[in-house]
Amino acid sequence: MISVVILGSGNVASHLTKVFLKTNTVDLVQVYSRKIENIEHLERKTLITDDITNLKNADVYIIAISDDAIEGFSENLDIDDALVVHTSGSVSIDALKGNYEKGVFYPLQTFSKGTKINFKNIPICVESNSSKQLNALKKLANSISKKVYVIDSNQREKLHLGAVFVNNFVNHLYEIGNEICEENNVPFEILQPLIKETAKKITKISPSAAQTGPAKRKDTETIKKHLDQLKKNQKEIYKIMTDSIIKKYN
Amino acid sequence: MISVVILGSGNVASHLTKVFLKTNTVDLVQVYSRKIENIEHLERKTLITDDITNLKNADVYIIAISDDAIEGFSENLDIDDALVVHTSGSVSIDALKGNYEKGVFYPLQTFSKGTKINFKNIPICVESNSSKQLNALKKLANSISKKVYVIDSNQREKLHLGAVFVNNFVNHLYEIGNEICEENNVPFEILQPLIKETAKKITKISPSAAQTGPAKRKDTETIKKHLDQLKKNQKEIYKIMTDSIIKKYN
Repeated sequence: MISVVILGSGNVASHLTKVFLKTNTVDLVQVYSRKIENIEHLERKTLITDDITNLKNADVYIIAISDDAIEGFSENLDIDDALVVHTSGSVSIDALKGNYEKGVFYPLQTFSKGTKINFKNIPICVESNSSKQLNALKKLANSISKKVYVIDSNQREKLHLGAVFVNNFVNHLYEIGNEICEENNVPFEILQPLIKETAKKITKISPSAAQTGPAKRKDTETIKKHLDQLKKNQKEIYKIMTDSIIKKYN
Repeated sequence: MISVVILGSGNVASHLTKVFLKTNTVDLVQVYSRKIENIEHLERKTLITDDITNLKNADVYIIAISDDAIEGFSENLDIDDALVVHTSGSVSIDALKGNYEKGVFYPLQTFSKGTKINFKNIPICVESNSSKQLNALKKLANSISKKVYVIDSNQREKLHLGAVFVNNFVNHLYEIGNEICEENNVPFEILQPLIKETAKKITKISPSAAQTGPAKRKDTETIKKHLDQLKKNQKEIYKIMTDSIIKKYN
């Protein structure tokens, strides 16, 4: 049984709290939050505290707070002889300052409060300076997910960068699709099966094999017709994406 | 029972052929292809021909050929007293030239030969100049899909434009994500659950409500750090997308 303390009450913290409470092989000893009201609903399920000097003993302390706050927070932790990890995709393991052993426990998914998350298929990227602790982290990750990867800080930074493209930017393209539909009284739901299939396709064939469309075909007539119909910022995105695809395939 | 002749043997034609052969309420009378070898495998299932002057009688003739070829092809069809439709997202109904009644039967999905398609959830956009024929088209569409929409040529053109953003451009972003992973020895599969979830999220909340990331937060420090890590064309796309998101939310 691995004992865990969660430090934080945001999206990642609350999803981890929920899944660890349901996991037999994990003992969630305590949850800390600066604001006790954020975690009062956990009172009957685990110990809660807003006093950072009053942490219980545990094998792993999981800092799940905003990226910028990790370093400062980690300095003030009075923990020895245990593993302290953060959950950030973009923060190096070296941001953790203190006399404890260090690690990273990064679940790569888009978390929103309120939405249900099935951790089984969420990739968890783990890292530690100590090979013993890395094994403990792998065990902890495997207790909630089938997809556990050992990824160092440099690789994790790149993964996070990739995630900006395939999540943040992709979502913005969905938004433009939505705009175009709304402006023309077409229900956006007509595009949703296409969106789903596009995402599914690249789990079977590579994105490069899946590429289609006027840019791929270098169909300049259609491209021109499209550009004439777009608003300014839509047009800029259309141009850059089309140029990039044309360069890639021609 | 609606009787149908399919004209063409490409992706859309072959998927429609397959689904109509399985559908009890549709009688697939004949398939035409300029190259008989493309449809020889259908010989035991329906009539086949490469002679355009030798078409059988049917209620609906479906032209499923490349966009550019539709107009010229439609002029040479010797059909009266029946409905002729094309299946293109970007071609107007007016491209159909001839003395027959006209319509459009546009299944909005990304088709690849070889991949299995479940038509039930594929939106089919129908249009006709005749309200009687529109009803026939709706019936035909409903026999294979639960999602049938009456969409005029102008709306369809916009839908097709929206599809370029949410399919072609989104796939190119997947490709950049893949590139970044490959360059850093990280398996692309780590990003796939995120890709899937991102596509799923916008069926529950609007893309605008789903937007996250450094650009949404206007986190200039992270944005700068990201830009420093990117190659030229990746950098341009990152900049344009980030500017567009910042403009939208700030």
